[in-house]
Amino acid sequence: MADWQPIGTQKRTDRDSKIPKEWRLPQSTLKQISMHSHLNVLDIPSTCGILTEKEISLTERYDATQLLEMLAKGEVSSYDVTLAFCKRAAIAQQLVNCLTEIFFDQALARAKEVDQYFKQNGKPMGPFHGLPISLKDSFNVKGVQATIGYVSFASREPASHNSALVEILLRHGAVVYVKTNLPQTMMTADSDNNLFGRTLNPVKLSLTAGGSTGGEGALIKLRGSILGVGTDIAGSVRIPALCDGIFGFKPSASRVPFAGKTPPGRLGMCAILPAIGPEGHSVRDMELWMKTVIDSTPWELDMNALDVPWRTVEDYKRPLRLGLITEHPKRPLHPSTLRAIKTAAKLLTDAGHIIIPLDNLIPDLWESAIIAWKYFMLDPKKTPETFIDEAKEPWVPSIATCTFPETANWNPTVDDLFELNMARMKVLHGYHSLVIQNKLDGFIMPTYQATAVPHDTYGVAIYTVLANLLNYPAGHIPFLKANKNLDVDYVRKDVAYEPPYDADAVEGAPTGIQVVGLPLRDEETLKIMQVVSDVLKATT
Amino acid sequence: MADWQPIGTQKRTDRDSKIPKEWRLPQSTLKQISMHSHLNVLDIPSTCGILTEKEISLTERYDATQLLEMLAKGEVSSYDVTLAFCKRAAIAQQLVNCLTEIFFDQALARAKEVDQYFKQNGKPMGPFHGLPISLKDSFNVKGVQATIGYVSFASREPASHNSALVEILLRHGAVVYVKTNLPQTMMTADSDNNLFGRTLNPVKLSLTAGGSTGGEGALIKLRGSILGVGTDIAGSVRIPALCDGIFGFKPSASRVPFAGKTPPGRLGMCAILPAIGPEGHSVRDMELWMKTVIDSTPWELDMNALDVPWRTVEDYKRPLRLGLITEHPKRPLHPSTLRAIKTAAKLLTDAGHIIIPLDNLIPDLWESAIIAWKYFMLDPKKTPETFIDEAKEPWVPSIATCTFPETANWNPTVDDLFELNMARMKVLHGYHSLVIQNKLDGFIMPTYQATAVPHDTYGVAIYTVLANLLNYPAGHIPFLKANKNLDVDYVRKDVAYEPPYDADAVEGAPTGIQVVGLPLRDEETLKIMQVVSDVLKATT
Repeated sequence: MADWQPIGTQKRTDRDSKIPKEWRLPQSTLKQISMHSHLNVLDIPSTCGILTEKEISLTERYDATQLLEMLAKGEVSSYDVTLAFCKRAAIAQQLVNCLTEIFFDQALARAKEVDQYFKQNGKPMGPFHGLPISLKDSFNVKGVQATIGYVSFASREPASHNSALVEILLRHGAVVYVKTNLPQTMMTADSDNNLFGRTLNPVKLSLTAGGSTGGEGALIKLRGSILGVGTDIAGSVRIPALCDGIFGFKPSASRVPFAGKTPPGRLGMCAILPAIGPEGHSVRDMELWMKTVIDSTPWELDMNALDVPWRTVEDYKRPLRLGLITEHPKRPLHPSTLRAIKTAAKLLTDAGHIIIPLDNLIPDLWESAIIAWKYFMLDPKKTPETFIDEAKEPWVPSIATCTFPETANWNPTVDDLFELNMARMKVLHGYHSLVIQNKLDGFIMPTYQATAVPHDTYGVAIYTVLANLLNYPAGHIPFLKANKNLDVDYVRKDVAYEPPYDADAVEGAPTGIQVVGLPLRDEETLKIMQVVSDVLKATT
Repeated sequence: MADWQPIGTQKRTDRDSKIPKEWRLPQSTLKQISMHSHLNVLDIPSTCGILTEKEISLTERYDATQLLEMLAKGEVSSYDVTLAFCKRAAIAQQLVNCLTEIFFDQALARAKEVDQYFKQNGKPMGPFHGLPISLKDSFNVKGVQATIGYVSFASREPASHNSALVEILLRHGAVVYVKTNLPQTMMTADSDNNLFGRTLNPVKLSLTAGGSTGGEGALIKLRGSILGVGTDIAGSVRIPALCDGIFGFKPSASRVPFAGKTPPGRLGMCAILPAIGPEGHSVRDMELWMKTVIDSTPWELDMNALDVPWRTVEDYKRPLRLGLITEHPKRPLHPSTLRAIKTAAKLLTDAGHIIIPLDNLIPDLWESAIIAWKYFMLDPKKTPETFIDEAKEPWVPSIATCTFPETANWNPTVDDLFELNMARMKVLHGYHSLVIQNKLDGFIMPTYQATAVPHDTYGVAIYTVLANLLNYPAGHIPFLKANKNLDVDYVRKDVAYEPPYDADAVEGAPTGIQVVGLPLRDEETLKIMQVVSDVLKATT
């Protein structure tokens, strides 16, 4: 056994010990859990007998907005809600391995404190009063480790500070209770690492849960969380939203404060900035989260946050003008995705919106993704590699699938960086011109060429990284599921599906569409998402 | 005679030919003009007999806000106002060589068009209705060259497009009539180049007019312009505002659209971004200008402009909390500057504001300036040098004075760039912490260690470049003048003045103070400037 293995074993043992015995699933259930199983585990939390009827109701029947209304009126206590979600998160963990850090005790103590506040003051602590919110492992919570899946980080001390965002959540009354799994380096779409292992997709265990915010995706889908927080530099909020069938939103960079997180690589090159964004069960939950966070003058907690207040914008009453991007020939849309985007476009058109096809007008999607990847590979010190080498841990398998042949020998000079920036400007200019010429409110496009795919086959994320390269806000809306009887009409013989299309493997997997808005118009983008979600009758 | 010399001669002859004979100053006046003369030429425009009484009144008695009110009410025509400023600009040109491009004919035609609009529609064309606005040479105006002082650019075609900002000005009813002088490379504080020669300071011809927006500074001081537009990456709006004794404002980068300008160097590295800002005669003029420009959804014209609407903020009714930065030992404050900043701090304190000394708490100002300079020197191709070599023109003398010994061998790698970014973050963090700990609204500090100084002795701009490095908005407020009888009490024997202090040389030169606000709080920064301007009773 290699030296790194006991470190992972210990970390997982410590984590699992935080799950009380009475919340443990029976061996009969556990023995069915495997990354090769086609099992859908979505019903197990409500049928396993661990949750009370009330707890099932609290965790299943509402979105965050509704729960917060009930909490703000005192119709339900934070303690009861938190306990319900702690139990359900514990169940989710046992089913899909979605958690990294568990701190139920602190969460329940905090819930009592919030309830006490309500009792004493007769009003909620803030817009997140009493609500449990889950966090990707890279966020820091005082007293809790943030190993982000690096074995070498397991020897680090627990955090001595809260991330700026965590401060804001707590200030507004939230309860934090778990952190969630993510991939080694955070740069692949399989949430798999040598400390915590792999997160499985609750819709079908044999499929990826997505990444890098994949632990969140799986936990939220199982309703072990009502609202979670991730980060997105190439699609890491939107990819798991697609894979697990929930909503996710990547804002314009720097509107949500990024300070005080544990970075997976080297700081100091801010070409493409990661953005923090929510994953959850409704567009209005994303909007509530964004408004609350940004109304908190984040600049005071993060010198790099934009001091741009949240604007109140009206719901759209007029038809939207949306550019439609479908596919790049190197990553043709799988049948279910093609069906989803075509159906969505038709429904939106039928509802009076104007859909403008742009495939032949946009800059090459593949080339755009390569530009983004070159930015991700700027660090000559290759810092993530040093973190990995430090523990002599192996690379997880999916890393090898997340590269472009075109970037193999990319060791840029400062001169190359000037050229790269100009190449990016050219892409930006292409989209800007299309927006102006066509008076676009935004775009619809796929989030990925397929649904969640079998583990370690996701590959490069050309359909999500575009919005990061442009720094346009973007969100994922769940819509339809892979259905081989319906999808058969969308199978094309003349394209090379990548990864290969296997109708049986993905049967039942959620699909959906991506909405991309205009830079710094996060407010409008969420309103567009609301319109699209309403037209598509999207639910998680 | 070198090949480049006739090109400059031709360009100046072409420019001068645009000044009608009846607007030419007599030889008796012109022969007094020299960069070695101590003459103050401020009174010549009103006494030379070229302007009518009404034209003297129109150009001298108002700020832009007042003139715009009169224009909007139809009390005065755009034609009359434009003609008055064309004449006065022509006089200014003959006195201090502040113009590069003259297009009076187009301006007067445009003024007629604006007047016609008013007659037909019974309302002004927009917030800049009928107002002549002057532009630094680097802005593009359709049909006009933008050589920015490079001899090699003299063979370029006239601009085929307007800069985004010029589009906005015109859309709102402005009249553009002249472009103004600037330094070779735009990276020194002496507005001197081999095409147009050197701009002199109208307060005292032997002193620098400042740079890089120095033509504007001199023109506005002579009231050959009521409102002008410059750019600022190290102080280029604020330095001439100090040197010539007017107001200047550098906003947060990217709020004012930068697209479509002629750049003096290579595009593609956006570490410290230049900002467009106004120079003029009152704080409220700066505010009106900013609000009007930013209310125009600049993103639609410039994909890199921030889509952040102008916020209406109230005048401050409470005491301000302002950090006070005085000096770095390597650039001790000259007596008049020391008197100005101490007097300003006392007057502000007396008026109830809270002034918090920060000299011992801020990151080293000299080191901060070096970080900024390293960013300015990133281009391995040294593009400005190639522009100069192309015409085999010599460097202007001041260039040699605008360098730090510490950056002599700076040929950075990508790794160095990571380190540089982290060094900048450290500086940012230092100021951010001070703001938070002291609940600061902003800072007051010198704009420069001295007043305008003799030509080619300005040196490095450590007191202005700080706000660019931080990307904090900042403005200059004119206040007091060098006065050797009063300044004698502020002379220190134990400091090494740089450039040397010569009381007679600078006698009568304007001094002032710099106000620095918080990032993206341009609205609040201008309100702070208004408070300070009121307390100091600042005028141009």
